[in-house]
Amino acid sequence: MERTPVWMMRQAGRYLPEYRRVREQAGSFMNLCTNPELACEVTLQPVDRYRLDAAILFSDILTIPDAMGLGLRFLEGEGPKFKHPVRTAEDIHRLGVPDPEDKLRYVPNAVRLIQQNLQGRVPLIGFSGSPWTLATYMVEGGGSKDFRKIKAMIYESPALVHELLGKLADSVAAYLNAQIAAGIDAAMVFDTWGGLLTSAQYLEFSLAYAQRVLHQLNRQVEGRIIPTILFTKGGGLWLESMAHTGYDALGLDWQTSIGQARQRVGDKVALQGNLDPVALYATPSAIRAEVKKILADFGHGTGHVFNLGHGVHPDIDPEHVGAMIEAVHEFSPEFHA
Amino acid sequence: MERTPVWMMRQAGRYLPEYRRVREQAGSFMNLCTNPELACEVTLQPVDRYRLDAAILFSDILTIPDAMGLGLRFLEGEGPKFKHPVRTAEDIHRLGVPDPEDKLRYVPNAVRLIQQNLQGRVPLIGFSGSPWTLATYMVEGGGSKDFRKIKAMIYESPALVHELLGKLADSVAAYLNAQIAAGIDAAMVFDTWGGLLTSAQYLEFSLAYAQRVLHQLNRQVEGRIIPTILFTKGGGLWLESMAHTGYDALGLDWQTSIGQARQRVGDKVALQGNLDPVALYATPSAIRAEVKKILADFGHGTGHVFNLGHGVHPDIDPEHVGAMIEAVHEFSPEFHA
Repeated sequence: MERTPVWMMRQAGRYLPEYRRVREQAGSFMNLCTNPELACEVTLQPVDRYRLDAAILFSDILTIPDAMGLGLRFLEGEGPKFKHPVRTAEDIHRLGVPDPEDKLRYVPNAVRLIQQNLQGRVPLIGFSGSPWTLATYMVEGGGSKDFRKIKAMIYESPALVHELLGKLADSVAAYLNAQIAAGIDAAMVFDTWGGLLTSAQYLEFSLAYAQRVLHQLNRQVEGRIIPTILFTKGGGLWLESMAHTGYDALGLDWQTSIGQARQRVGDKVALQGNLDPVALYATPSAIRAEVKKILADFGHGTGHVFNLGHGVHPDIDPEHVGAMIEAVHEFSPEFHA
Repeated sequence: MERTPVWMMRQAGRYLPEYRRVREQAGSFMNLCTNPELACEVTLQPVDRYRLDAAILFSDILTIPDAMGLGLRFLEGEGPKFKHPVRTAEDIHRLGVPDPEDKLRYVPNAVRLIQQNLQGRVPLIGFSGSPWTLATYMVEGGGSKDFRKIKAMIYESPALVHELLGKLADSVAAYLNAQIAAGIDAAMVFDTWGGLLTSAQYLEFSLAYAQRVLHQLNRQVEGRIIPTILFTKGGGLWLESMAHTGYDALGLDWQTSIGQARQRVGDKVALQGNLDPVALYATPSAIRAEVKKILADFGHGTGHVFNLGHGVHPDIDPEHVGAMIEAVHEFSPEFHA
């Protein structure tokens, strides 16, 4: 029976007790990311537990800046920090494009191992942070509330930001191409912080470089076609522009109505989303009702991949996730009849 | 010479050394809000220092829940907290609409004193938090990252949220009417957290109640006409709906292009905004360039009130604020020629 496919951002993650056990065994978050066996194990966990239609590589968006030598650390309860943030022209000139088969080879290695273990059960999605989102962490030195350092750079030295983003776009493309060569079935670019920009800045500093990534991707490899997905949190205003980049699908956050988004982008792209991750704190019956609303909002036909509007929160009850996934299985066939 | 008027959200605030002196004298933030003489003094400070076209009442958006008995406290470095958050049906049933001339009379008293002291130099803007934004603080018990408590209430007991919002809308209307009777020249509703909702929820839980406030306002008093302004941070997707509510002006955050906003809402409403508050960390010459871009983006004609896209940050250099204001004076006349 035809139905809407479903997966979930951060589906391999802290809300799962089996994930927490492996994470503890790994000792640190980065140990988990850089160990292909453990990364493979946690990637498969949600696929073993739920009726999901895709696996997504377990990794972090900041692997590229780490490979560039910025010294990524995760301090408990503090989020990511870079030992060597990028602040000056000299810092940016010095950056190179990391060879994904050198310092990042743990990622294609994990992809190969996951594909061996998945044995075609479901497709595997690979991913990277967007150039803009990587740049924000690299310049701010970690997470930020207001992104004042990189924005000051945009206002005062835009050419420097372009130099940084150019290097990052080439790095992201090489990184995703290595994942493609290793066997991923689809590639997603996460632009977590594009929504913090003005409209003009978004086009110039975020979307243009997401497109530069796309143009360098090997989207056809030995007869395989690799669909691409672009997700900008807070990017609802810019869907038309995003739909023109050539990405095959757009990820939607929960603010945007998926029905209105579909009207705006037509059949140029597929749409992925967009249940509010906070809805998963509600009761299973309330979750089921929300799933139904989103399916109905998208309406009949193909081109919808059900997902959350952002990553699942770490303290969500795994049974609530199950309620969401089962509701997609139960309610979506009527929209494909 | 005709030009674009300019004022700034949180223009009476911590970035000004003269404000910090009065704040210290007051002992606490709430002492400052509830003392009409001191509130008057800090309201006038930015008007004395800069060539601004409006004063805005110094107050806090949480005065109404405080008057409802929730026990507002400001803990240093932690933001607002309520001693008695609203969590149950019983909590909500119990809430009354506070008489603004009783526990909130310090606000109309401050308005009267400010108008005596302003002596017509510039108009005075009064304000309130929107019903939705007040409800988020009341249910969460303070600020929140993900608003999970009030969203759970939306998903599980929407009728309760409507009951709360109805009482808040009536309270906000009574509060703004008291400010109008005391002499404010314009009224603004701040919907800081509307952007956290889905599109459907925004219309049902935020915008409908902002409109219920508007319908109860005394917008014509003894020949005076009181213009109204609605600001939803993160509301760029919904400008058309906002423009249909009957508010005279919409506040824009910095994400939205003011030129595109103007195209979308036509001449139904004036537009207020929308320089990124983070741009004020940049050099004065970069700030001037950004001001010019926004004026040009809006284009020729009236209907633009220059402002930030959100409140000024507390650590901004007052000279940078001056550079922004002077740039509006210098560059805007060409758009009115």
